[in-house]
Formats: sequence, structure tokens, C-alpha cells
Amino acid sequence: MSGRIAHRGLRSKVVSAAQAAAHIRPGDNVGMSGFTGAGHPKAVPRALADMLSEHRARGEDFRIGVWTGASTAPELDGALAEADGIELRLPYQSDPVSRAKINAGTMEYIDVHLSHVAQMAWEGFLGRLDVALVEVAGITEEGDLVPSTSVGNNKTWIDLADKVILEVNTRQPLELDGMHDIYYGTALPPNRRPLMITRPDDRIGVPHFACPPDKVVAIVETDAPDRHTLFKPIDEDSRAIAGHLIDFLELEVKAGRMPADLLPLQSGVGNIANAVLAGLGDTRHRGLTAYTEVLQDGMLDLLESGTLRFASATAFSLSPAGAAHFNENIGSFQGRVLLRSQEISNHPEVIRRLGVIATNGMIEADIYGNINSTHVMGSAIQNGIGGSGDFARNAYVSAFVTPSTAKGGALSCIVPMVSHVDHTEHDVGVVITEQGLADLRGLAPRRRAQRIIDQCAHPDYRPMLQDYFDRAVSGAWGRQTPHLLGEALSWHTRFMETGTMRLP
Amino acid sequence: MSGRIAHRGLRSKVVSAAQAAAHIRPGDNVGMSGFTGAGHPKAVPRALADMLSEHRARGEDFRIGVWTGASTAPELDGALAEADGIELRLPYQSDPVSRAKINAGTMEYIDVHLSHVAQMAWEGFLGRLDVALVEVAGITEEGDLVPSTSVGNNKTWIDLADKVILEVNTRQPLELDGMHDIYYGTALPPNRRPLMITRPDDRIGVPHFACPPDKVVAIVETDAPDRHTLFKPIDEDSRAIAGHLIDFLELEVKAGRMPADLLPLQSGVGNIANAVLAGLGDTRHRGLTAYTEVLQDGMLDLLESGTLRFASATAFSLSPAGAAHFNENIGSFQGRVLLRSQEISNHPEVIRRLGVIATNGMIEADIYGNINSTHVMGSAIQNGIGGSGDFARNAYVSAFVTPSTAKGGALSCIVPMVSHVDHTEHDVGVVITEQGLADLRGLAPRRRAQRIIDQCAHPDYRPMLQDYFDRAVSGAWGRQTPHLLGEALSWHTRFMETGTMRLP
Repeated sequence: MSGRIAHRGLRSKVVSAAQAAAHIRPGDNVGMSGFTGAGHPKAVPRALADMLSEHRARGEDFRIGVWTGASTAPELDGALAEADGIELRLPYQSDPVSRAKINAGTMEYIDVHLSHVAQMAWEGFLGRLDVALVEVAGITEEGDLVPSTSVGNNKTWIDLADKVILEVNTRQPLELDGMHDIYYGTALPPNRRPLMITRPDDRIGVPHFACPPDKVVAIVETDAPDRHTLFKPIDEDSRAIAGHLIDFLELEVKAGRMPADLLPLQSGVGNIANAVLAGLGDTRHRGLTAYTEVLQDGMLDLLESGTLRFASATAFSLSPAGAAHFNENIGSFQGRVLLRSQEISNHPEVIRRLGVIATNGMIEADIYGNINSTHVMGSAIQNGIGGSGDFARNAYVSAFVTPSTAKGGALSCIVPMVSHVDHTEHDVGVVITEQGLADLRGLAPRRRAQRIIDQCAHPDYRPMLQDYFDRAVSGAWGRQTPHLLGEALSWHTRFMETGTMRLP
Repeated sequence: MSGRIAHRGLRSKVVSAAQAAAHIRPGDNVGMSGFTGAGHPKAVPRALADMLSEHRARGEDFRIGVWTGASTAPELDGALAEADGIELRLPYQSDPVSRAKINAGTMEYIDVHLSHVAQMAWEGFLGRLDVALVEVAGITEEGDLVPSTSVGNNKTWIDLADKVILEVNTRQPLELDGMHDIYYGTALPPNRRPLMITRPDDRIGVPHFACPPDKVVAIVETDAPDRHTLFKPIDEDSRAIAGHLIDFLELEVKAGRMPADLLPLQSGVGNIANAVLAGLGDTRHRGLTAYTEVLQDGMLDLLESGTLRFASATAFSLSPAGAAHFNENIGSFQGRVLLRSQEISNHPEVIRRLGVIATNGMIEADIYGNINSTHVMGSAIQNGIGGSGDFARNAYVSAFVTPSTAKGGALSCIVPMVSHVDHTEHDVGVVITEQGLADLRGLAPRRRAQRIIDQCAHPDYRPMLQDYFDRAVSGAWGRQTPHLLGEALSWHTRFMETGTMRLP
């Protein structure tokens, strides 16, 4: 035994992954840990997938509902989807096998704002939660649980589920202890209270999850890494996008619309986000803060360089090298990072109060600044909305970023009308591509359109967008937001028919 | 002089409406009072319109930016739009002359979440505010201002503007004094603090606006009524919609998903809203609360009957009879209604904390539950988003209501794809028409679609929607949210071409 389980009564509950999985019944809803590949259970999901497959082989249907924090890893989402074991998945996923099953229509997927998941579960809107399956870094003598590399919805899953299965992962450094802030003050209305966070480093909770030991039905010991994603080297487009954003922030400071030491940063996941963070490291800024969802390599670099003073999030999402570096230098991050429940990291109340500068990726934007974050050709899910809606609606400045084209130029990421809307014109302040930055704040729709066409569209598509817009202004049903509905989505249909949005 | 101006220094500033209007310069941004036809300035806007027209006759361009709380009245929006005097209007309007100018492309209009307006002004995103033009019920000896029948953004306009013009309207009852809660604790980040409202009746501010007397450049005395809108008698569709909503609330209580005395109510403006309120009056409920934007006749009825214990809003919006009744019985409403700044009445933080039950009207919904609240045929503005987004995103339950058809059945209000999105699938819990109620919570998109088609669509359009949906499921690019983009908006183009969404 690993020595990570200090509570004597709970030591007796250590079993194999297969024995733990056997506590899960057909039709159960299982709340699992895991957020952007960090802190998900490593062993039981695969054992569960094997069990499901055996049932299937005997002709018995065995599927479950899988609720998580956000994306997990192949050994969870991949294995269970492969086994056709997921009836319903929420709230965010990025697994290719899952995605294929969802888009084939054989797996249901509910795409929820990440800040809404816990409250929807408490409110009873999602049905009953049967089992919590949560990775922890250890168990204290008192039976409290030391969180792992993500917090996500774990507090809620443990509180709500009838049965709790724990994975104690010795690969997670014990020095994580103290880096979490688990808030136990949430309630259902009419009993909700203000969240007393006024700075990113404010602590309002406790370092551990509370869990009555008799709810724990099984404990599995693991020694396995998180899903560490290799980041690509920063490419030219990402560098250009980062440059536009940083120039914009400098201008905002000069214009007196932003404090000299900026405001707490939020940044989506991925290469552009890392480029923005790298770009910030080259500025004069020191002592900034982040109030965000995920700590990527770029955030840790900024913490080490002093550009960032403090970062609050709900999870890590590191590369293999980033994780190794973090684990080796974990002491230097203590007191400078804090992981919170995702209902707090993404809470509208806190995001609006702090005045977060939000930067999120997207699939496409339309000329009026509506954003599609989730659906390819309006129908196929890519990943999910994640926290982008929580941040975009409530941020001080809400920016969306994308290269101006995709698929080698066959797709324009600026289109006449987006094929799916996740963020409306009301919630989008700035659109950035490698071509430039369109500041849309305080502009009526036609001015937004002209600015996006001028600043953000790729030169190959700019004349086509201008032509659409000009004809819409003269021919639409009204001139507030002129659209020609007969061809507003024709760029997408052309792509589906010919493989490119370009004109023949 | 009316005796409503107790401050001696300010008495000397009383002038005619024309003299007051002369303080406004070409290109000025003017922050005006007014919310749903209540508390707007009655005299100066018309004098200003006359002045603009005279300049125009002399060949001089004279246009201004008009910022308000929400909709006003013909003597403000109508007169200024008629004179082509508005360069830019925000954030909500419902005036037919304005609407026509906006849709003709001769007047710019920015449609902003009502809770965002004040902060955007403070943040400097809207440019400079030159003049505040605010109706008040009186001025105290100390020079404080007794608010009128709406609060809206008045506190912000008075604080931000270089010059303040006041209209003191003796038609507004002095007994309004004490019915307002003006919060002076807002700030720009990083200095924002929690809003300490945990019940609809919590007071966190003061009863009057503060205004340095030397900022006041002119005072005009008026004696004129608000725009009181005649409500139509409750029709059968509205009654049916109200019935579905009330049945739903009862079921939620029985299922334990809502407290027995419900949660604070929010309700949009209009006949359906009044029908819902009337319907609530026929239930067993007593002692409910409202945390809403506007107090309509229906709310006052419920306060009088005891169904409502307390109502918080930012404005009244009464019929002529309702206003007369209110003024005659104003004493009985004291201590039971409170008008707040719209940034507080619509604040995401408070709405989410209180767990508001939100019911808002719409133009159309699509089969997946995306909502168009603002644009006819995706291009022409109807009114604006108002507070629907503030409430829908943050409510405990977010319902949208509409009759299933419009224009004598030529329009289906349930369509394959909405022509404009104001509220995404992520933010819409319940859709209601006279046909029935679709509870979409916890459902993946294809299930949402089937439920909306089954429960909400008009029988004349149901087979067409089912046909579209079935073909989309089999033929779309992906099955998460199946759409046939080549015909998703064809119902709208058919209407524009033939005058009906029906098939020939």
C-alpha cells in the first residue's frame, strides 16, 4: 500500500479497479473527476469499459451517464466511448472517439456552461447522481481527501453521489496539498450568499474535500500520469494574434480604460493561448494575476519570470515537459497558484467583479461578431463551449481569437453568418485573427461588420465578404443587421459540396 | 414655481425647455432618464428636436447620441428620431419612428444587455457622456434628487456627465420618495465589491440621487404623464401560455426542485406577462416576491391581493388605469416596492444568487431552443434584447414564451433555425407556446428538438418541422445538432418571397 491513505478505516477499502467498477450499475449516472486531462481517474474507467463490453457480449445493455469537470483522457472518455458505454456525456469533451460517436448520433452529449454544471446537478435538473469516481492525491488521517491536479466538480460529485469510489494516485505530488481552495458555502436559492472573493488570491474555502468515510465503497491505488498534451511550437499566426492583443492592451492602458497593471487574465486552452502568454512575458508587465480555468505551461513560465504574481484556476493542463518541470519545482509555486471548484473559477459573479480580461478561441466568427465555438458546419460538435460563455459574458473585455482561415485556406473563419451561435454579438468585444484586431465595443452592427471585414478577414476572402455585406445592406429586410438569408449560409454549403468556401 | 425644488440655489436655475435644450451641442452624448415609458424627460427632448430642426433648416448638421435606461415615449424617441436628430441610440427602444429610421439605416442603434450599459459607460467603451437629462420628482433642501417612476441608468448619467439638466415633474407623486434604493457602491475593477443583496427586499443604497448643484445647468418644471400603455384584455393564447407555466411551476414544487413558495419572479413586459401574473393570482400562492425589471399592472394586482409580498424592479410600466389606481393607493405600496438602478435590478450576480424564475417573450425559437428576441427576418430590429439576456443566463429557470404562430398563421414562431440568435441553447430551459411547454433541461439537442416540435409547434407547422428534423438527422454533416444548412433559413426566405412560411 502506498502510504497515501492515512485514515485507518478507509485502508480496508482498497480493492482492484475491476472490483471498484463492479459498484457501478447499468443506467447509473457517474460523476467523474477530470478537467483538461488532469486529475481524472486512471484505472476504474478502463475496468468499467471492460465490464461493459463483457455485459454487451452477453447481450445485456450496460450504459451509463458520464458527468465530469471537462475533458479527460483516452483511458476514460476514449475507453468508455469505444465500448459504447456512454448513454449521455456532459459537460465538455475533446476525445476523438467520443466525438465520432456523438456525431454519429450514438452517444448523447449536453454542452453546458462549465459554471452551470454543479448548480444544475444540485437543482435536480440532470437527474440523480449515483456514483462519484474521483482521483485524489491522498487521504488524511481524518478521512479528508487531498485533491489532485484538477478540482472541477469533484466537491459536488462527492456531496451528491450515493456511493464514492476513490482513486489514490501516487504519481501526483503530495506537495499539491495546500494548493486548493474548496468552498463549502454554496447553497440552493433562496439560501445563496455572496461569494467573498475580491482578488484572485482570496481564499474562501478549505484545502480538502470532506467525505463521510462510509460513503466510500471502494478505493483503488494508481500510479499513472495525467494526459499531458504536447504543445506545438508557437507558429507565426499565433504570434501575430498575440501581438495584436498585447498592443490592444497597451493602448487601453494609455487611454485610461485599463489599469496600468491590467486586470486578471483568463485564457482558453491551446497554442494561441500559450502564444499570448509568451508574448506577455516579453512586456514590461510584472505582478499580474490570472483568474482563469486552466494553468498551461505558459502560465507557469509567467509565474516563474515574475510577470504573473498569482494564478487561480480549476485545473492544470501541462505538457510532459511542463509537468516534469512543475513537479521538480513545485515548492516555488506554493502560495502562488490556487485550484478552485469550477463553479467558482468560472462564476459570473466573480468574473464580473474582478473584471477579467478574457481571451478564448473559436471555430468561426461572422461579420457582426457572433461566435461559433462548438459546431462544425452547424451540426457536428467539435469539443464544447467549455467556460468561454462564463468568461465572455462577464468579462471586462471579451476577446475571441482564431487564424483567419483553416484547412489550408479552404475555410474562412470569418463568414457572413455563423452556422451555430455560442456567443452573441452582445457578448463579444474584440475579434482577433493574424490579420488584425477588430475592436467592436460601442459599435452598431454595420460598423462592426466593416471593421471585422477590414481588420480580421483573410485577403483572399475579404472581397467576397465585402460583396456580401454591400449587397445585404442594400437588399436586406432591414438595415440594423443586414443579411441575405438565402445565401447567408452558402459559404458553408459550398464547402460541404466542393471542399472549399472559395468561389469556383 | 411648483414648490418641488427645496434647494434655494437650484431654484434660480429654472428655465424654459428651449433654454435648457440650448445647453446641448452637436455631437453630444446625452444620457436621458426613461425606462419602458416611465420617468423620461417630457419637455426638453421636444424642444431639442425643434432646435435640431432649425439647425437642419439652416443647413447645419446637428445630431446627438441618446443613451437611456430603456424605451421612452413619442415625445422623446419619436420626436428626436422624426427630426433625424439621433446619430446613435442605445440600449433599448420600442418607438415606431425610431425603429423605422434604424431599419432604414439612417440611425445607428447598439443593442446592449441592460445590466451592461452603466459599466460600459464607466469603462469608457461608449465615449464621453456630455449631458445628463433626467426627470425627478423633486429636489431636497440639500440638493439631492428624488427619483421619479424609473431609475434606469440615472445615477450613472448624473455621475458621469459634465452637465446635468433636470426636469422636475409635478405629475409624479411625491409619495414615490422612499421607494428607491440608489446604490453608490459600484466601482471599476479591481475595486468592485460584492453586492450584499440576498433577498429582493434588501436595501443597499440611499433613497436619492446625489448631484453637485454646480453641475446642474438647467431645471425645467413639467406636469406631464408617463407613457401609459393600454394592455389588451388577456387573450386565449396568453391564458394558455400562463396556464402551462403555472402547471410547470407546481410540478417543480411537487418534484422538490423548487421551494413551496417558489423563488423570486421576473417577467418581461407585455400581455403574456400580464396573463402569467393574473394566472398566479388564481393559485394558492401567497407571499411571493419579484426581482424583476418592470412593475406592470399585473404585479400591482398581485401585491394588493397578497400573492406578492414584495417586488423589486427598476421602473413602473402601467396602463392609464393602473397608474391612476397606483397614484390613488400609493400609500399601500410603500415598503412593498423598490426601484433600483438597472445595473442592480438586472445584475447577473444578484439574479443568480436569488435564483430568479425568468419568463421572457421572443420573436421565434428554433427546434434546438435557440431564441431570437430582436430581429425580424434576421435583419430588421424589432425592439431590443432588453434585460432578457441578463435574466435568461443567470436565472434558476429560464423560460421563453410566444404564441406558436404570428401574422394570422403566416409565420411559425418555431422554425428550423432562428434567423438571429440572442439566447443560445445553453441558456434556455423552457419554451412555451399556447400549444404546450417543452422542458429542455438536461436534454441533448436532438431530444430538445423532438420535444419542442411535439409540445410547442402549431399543428399546421408541426409536420413540416418534423420533416425537416428527420431529414436533418439523416443528412446533416453531424448528428449533435443536425441542420441542413441549405434550407435551414428557407422558411424565412419563403415568407419574404410569398408572404407566408407555409408551403405552396
